[in-house]
Amino acid sequence: MFKEFEISTEEHYQLINITDKLQDIVRKGKIKNGLVSIFVPHTTAAVLVTEDETGLKQDWLKILERIVSNFDFAHNRCDNNGASHILAGLVGPSKTFIVRDNGIILGTWQQIFLAEFDGPRKREIFIKIVSD
Amino acid sequence: MFKEFEISTEEHYQLINITDKLQDIVRKGKIKNGLVSIFVPHTTAAVLVTEDETGLKQDWLKILERIVSNFDFAHNRCDNNGASHILAGLVGPSKTFIVRDNGIILGTWQQIFLAEFDGPRKREIFIKIVSD
Amino acid sequence: MFKEFEISTEEHYQLINITDKLQDIVRKGKIKNGLVSIFVPHTTAAVLVTEDETGLKQDWLKILERIVSNFDFAHNRCDNNGASHILAGLVGPSKTFIVRDNGIILGTWQQIFLAEFDGPRKREIFIKIVSD
Repeated sequence: MFKEFEISTEEHYQLINITDKLQDIVRKGKIKNGLVSIFVPHTTAAVLVTEDETGLKQDWLKILERIVSNFDFAHNRCDNNGASHILAGLVGPSKTFIVRDNGIILGTWQQIFLAEFDGPRKREIFIKIVSD
Repeated sequence: MFKEFEISTEEHYQLINITDKLQDIVRKGKIKNGLVSIFVPHTTAAVLVTEDETGLKQDWLKILERIVSNFDFAHNRCDNNGASHILAGLVGPSKTFIVRDNGIILGTWQQIFLAEFDGPRKREIFIKIVSD
Repeated sequence: MFKEFEISTEEHYQLINITDKLQDIVRKGKIKNGLVSIFVPHTTAAVLVTEDETGLKQDWLKILERIVSNFDFAHNRCDNNGASHILAGLVGPSKTFIVRDNGIILGTWQQIFLAEFDGPRKREIFIKIVSD
């Protein structure tokens, strides 16, 4: 099963919780048990799993920004978004989850986020489930 | 095939080699060839692949701690484990491996670790194999 | 479907674009739709997704080097490649992609790289596709 949807981001760096949307797609699908891959076809956005707490989301963006701070990006002479590429690549363009009884298995505090690192933009999210 | 097991961690930050346990589960399973996803349903623990060498395991924990050092976590006003969440999210809650002839394919030095970032705690590890 | 190929790296730290080779293997395979895992059986090499732009590739290697700089690696008293292990583990030994119509789905700027962190060496790349 393959599905896709779009999301519009609003900030330059932003974490958007897409868990409900993903669970809804998986619940309506025909595959009850298997693996699901959530994939963004972008080099300046990523998929992150963390808790949905306001302070923590701020911490995430600030810590990531610090990793790429005070750096003279060669890529910025080409496009002015070198830091965006590095952070998207570090967090990664996809995450794989287990599907059980028509839902993505998540821990109590786990939520799935689209991580925007070069917004605001329109982003695509792809969902692929394979059954066991 | 879906399996799960529990592990008790002993330190605040700790790497625990779970390779033998995982290989044992895969060997006893009915799926000979496919993909396996190792998933922890936690936001302050992760799955890491690296060599099992005492010095290297110390290096891992110290380098990770340095990434989140000298930072005033907003999340710490809520729970006192902001750094734990960031490190778990950076390392990631799951890794996907290839299953061949009833075993997980690993390189000579590759071992699979549960990475504890907010222990000691009881942690769950989920294993899902899909066949090709 | 399982396939493997070898690649010879030339530098100590290097990003090598393996997208064309991977797409060629997937196109010639019998599985039209599913998930594909690209896995390197090494602890000092990894799989990275980013844009193929000269400046950006330099930025990647310099930023990663900075994360592990000025650190006294305990592992270096064993093997002199502590930093190589940390960077390989952070970037990760595998990435999972969606296969559709006999090709790996990638965004306009997404390319798949073997990330060498302890070259020059001969490296193996494993490809496993499971169908839906």
